[in-house]
Amino acid sequence: MENIISTLQQQLGSEKVLTGAAVKARFHHIWHTDQPLTAKAVLLPDSTEDMAQIMQICHKYEQPVVVHGGLTGLVGGTETQSHDIVISTEQLSNIEEVDEKSRTMTVQAGVILQQIQEAAKEKDLLFPLNFGAKGTAQIGGIISTNAGGLRVFRYGMTRNLVLGLEAVLPDGTVISSMKKIIKDNSGYDLKQLFIGSEGTLGIITKAVLKLTEAPQSRNSAFIGINDYDNVIRLLKYMDKGLAGTLSGYELIWNSTYRTMTSPSTSSKPPLSYDYKYYVLLESLGSDYEKDRQQLEQLLEHTLTEGIIQDAVLANSAADLQWFWTIREDVHVLVSQCTYDHHFDISIPIPLIETVVDSIIAELAGIEEIECIFPFGHIADGNVHFIIGRPTKEEAIIKKINDIVYAPLKKIGGSVSAEHGVGLHKKSFLSLCRTPAEIQLMKTLKQTLDPKHILNRGRII
Amino acid sequence: MENIISTLQQQLGSEKVLTGAAVKARFHHIWHTDQPLTAKAVLLPDSTEDMAQIMQICHKYEQPVVVHGGLTGLVGGTETQSHDIVISTEQLSNIEEVDEKSRTMTVQAGVILQQIQEAAKEKDLLFPLNFGAKGTAQIGGIISTNAGGLRVFRYGMTRNLVLGLEAVLPDGTVISSMKKIIKDNSGYDLKQLFIGSEGTLGIITKAVLKLTEAPQSRNSAFIGINDYDNVIRLLKYMDKGLAGTLSGYELIWNSTYRTMTSPSTSSKPPLSYDYKYYVLLESLGSDYEKDRQQLEQLLEHTLTEGIIQDAVLANSAADLQWFWTIREDVHVLVSQCTYDHHFDISIPIPLIETVVDSIIAELAGIEEIECIFPFGHIADGNVHFIIGRPTKEEAIIKKINDIVYAPLKKIGGSVSAEHGVGLHKKSFLSLCRTPAEIQLMKTLKQTLDPKHILNRGRII
Repeated sequence: MENIISTLQQQLGSEKVLTGAAVKARFHHIWHTDQPLTAKAVLLPDSTEDMAQIMQICHKYEQPVVVHGGLTGLVGGTETQSHDIVISTEQLSNIEEVDEKSRTMTVQAGVILQQIQEAAKEKDLLFPLNFGAKGTAQIGGIISTNAGGLRVFRYGMTRNLVLGLEAVLPDGTVISSMKKIIKDNSGYDLKQLFIGSEGTLGIITKAVLKLTEAPQSRNSAFIGINDYDNVIRLLKYMDKGLAGTLSGYELIWNSTYRTMTSPSTSSKPPLSYDYKYYVLLESLGSDYEKDRQQLEQLLEHTLTEGIIQDAVLANSAADLQWFWTIREDVHVLVSQCTYDHHFDISIPIPLIETVVDSIIAELAGIEEIECIFPFGHIADGNVHFIIGRPTKEEAIIKKINDIVYAPLKKIGGSVSAEHGVGLHKKSFLSLCRTPAEIQLMKTLKQTLDPKHILNRGRII
Repeated sequence: MENIISTLQQQLGSEKVLTGAAVKARFHHIWHTDQPLTAKAVLLPDSTEDMAQIMQICHKYEQPVVVHGGLTGLVGGTETQSHDIVISTEQLSNIEEVDEKSRTMTVQAGVILQQIQEAAKEKDLLFPLNFGAKGTAQIGGIISTNAGGLRVFRYGMTRNLVLGLEAVLPDGTVISSMKKIIKDNSGYDLKQLFIGSEGTLGIITKAVLKLTEAPQSRNSAFIGINDYDNVIRLLKYMDKGLAGTLSGYELIWNSTYRTMTSPSTSSKPPLSYDYKYYVLLESLGSDYEKDRQQLEQLLEHTLTEGIIQDAVLANSAADLQWFWTIREDVHVLVSQCTYDHHFDISIPIPLIETVVDSIIAELAGIEEIECIFPFGHIADGNVHFIIGRPTKEEAIIKKINDIVYAPLKKIGGSVSAEHGVGLHKKSFLSLCRTPAEIQLMKTLKQTLDPKHILNRGRII
């Protein structure tokens, strides 16, 4: 069996096949732990041809592989065992083209999100996907996990931003459809198989991304509201009034807001602590002054109508920075926890208050819990919880998981809005997918990867 | 074999199983021909349970079935042979819920698009999908063909408007995920298998549709441009300037515009015949007067800059009606043709002028051709051609097809932007999909429908 390494070295060249000390030396830093990487080898393909060759060889030898991109996933999808071979996409790092007229960017899988954002910006275009790990996350991993983020409400998940895709199947077959066209109903849309399937059906090697015109103005407001029904009313009113420019609508619960703006942080509170909910809203438009006036008028109307209790607009770039740091710097929340336990659930929008209140009430029964911080991308029905606990004890972890996930089945929610399933959420999958759905996933996996060599054991 | 009919009658009740004269009497009108429907039977399920039972029985008997919705497809997907059983979705006609707060609508597969539009409108919401056959097309067929239309640029294809889906597999298994949530990364997104696969992998029985707030204002302008590069420049400038409200950007070639507004039609030309291209633009916003002023200012700027040669804004509801009738009443074009030959191709946006010009030049070599009318949803890269010919002769049809489709392979285009493949475009599929892609489509079909009973022979 061991001659797979020499076969790979012969075919790829030995500089693309790391083994032994080279594996540990090179990758021990990437786990946010002190653990060296455990793997039989690390492969560094720099072309689709390399990737196809690798998979042909691994398929022949029935060699399990785990694909590594930027390693920013949160569900254990990149964990390895000693018999695995790791395929890193880091050498697939070329931006092949930015086409201003088609408003597309053609990239290899290993290009980092921030580079994509910057390359778009240079042409006065926008790649709207954005999230905390943008300086490290690679587009191949982003697509394979269908990543979300702060502007899904307006621009969609990653799935909506991919026009063309190339992937290598577990047997080395290249499925390539690197088209720049927006509409294509010529048969099955095969790229959908690879988007969001967490690298279990194929390895993404290239993509054509959809860009949009860069917005010329950005406005934001922090809003205090005492009634969840009014959170929905405001969303609908703003969405209608801002007519296409509303791009963010984040909800922060009172407890979370207090911590995010406590004296120990660098952020003063833009509004007092008197309100039950805080909405942080963003519009991306074409004319700063006009857009600001419009937002102000809409907010004044909702204040007069009693839909909102208070609001403050960002008046400068510094204000924008201040407002969004409050929302985005989750480290402030994490620092309150001995161990931080993260959730990323979807709930139908009208039910969010009831479900979150009932979860918090249930969690109150676990006396070990240090803190509970709900917040989220509420226009998308996506709630994040950070829960602090003083222990790594499995029984406590299980209790917390059970309480947070329990309501989701009945209400048609999801245990994973954005982060995926990987290894860590597998045992909860049946809370939001039916046995027939899970069976169909297994059938697809069996069909495309009958030897189960690709990211084995993820999802199902 | 014939006892499949009695089995179906026993299980469903005989009122849901039409045979003999009842088949011909009931359906002879639907083909836009005088031909009666040819089929062994027509089934009228009124629930998902009925549909599951039908497919269990047909699977057992290896009975080929063809699914019929509103029969507005343009690629022969609903054609039948005498040994087929037709399953009509017409009894699956309930709108189950309009949820204003979630901004979703839950519908059975047989609900007609116009009913969906009206039910959304009643709650001051919008289901943005819109096309000519809206009074007949059923949502099950619309989803299974991933229909497009006039506002794809802003709101996306049907694929982007489906949150939850229920489908019955060829063996009768029900795959149900009727969720209202926007984000769900809990495993494979199975609904993508059924959207756009033209009913070859499963029969859609229900869907949760995504609605948006209804726009409060609509503005349009007709614009004359002499240079294709400026068509793109204007698109980018308007998209940026209108910042999220641009919803339509249609291009009409001079020859097409002349015919659309000729004295024999009811439409006067809004602009003179002096320009090479005519753009019909639409914005959907929140404030008619403000939106109109903004559009006017943007157009004035492009006029001053020499990007456009002339423009006229719609000043009233009557003007809007006038402008859009010109674009939408393709009957005016069809009436110029003895036989009308339609195309629905995708071309990368920067290449449209060159490709269309070269197609027209090539077509000039066929002396039988009566007329050539190019127009299309240019912001999506989707060009429609209507070509008139005096004959049904196969050799001429083949010549025309070959000329129009020939350039698409090299440039990464598509033989079908919106209409699908069905039976009529199968022989052109390899012009825009690779052998590996077509093989993977066949593998998926074989996996989900090993007996090939469901919409047999479509696409691949």
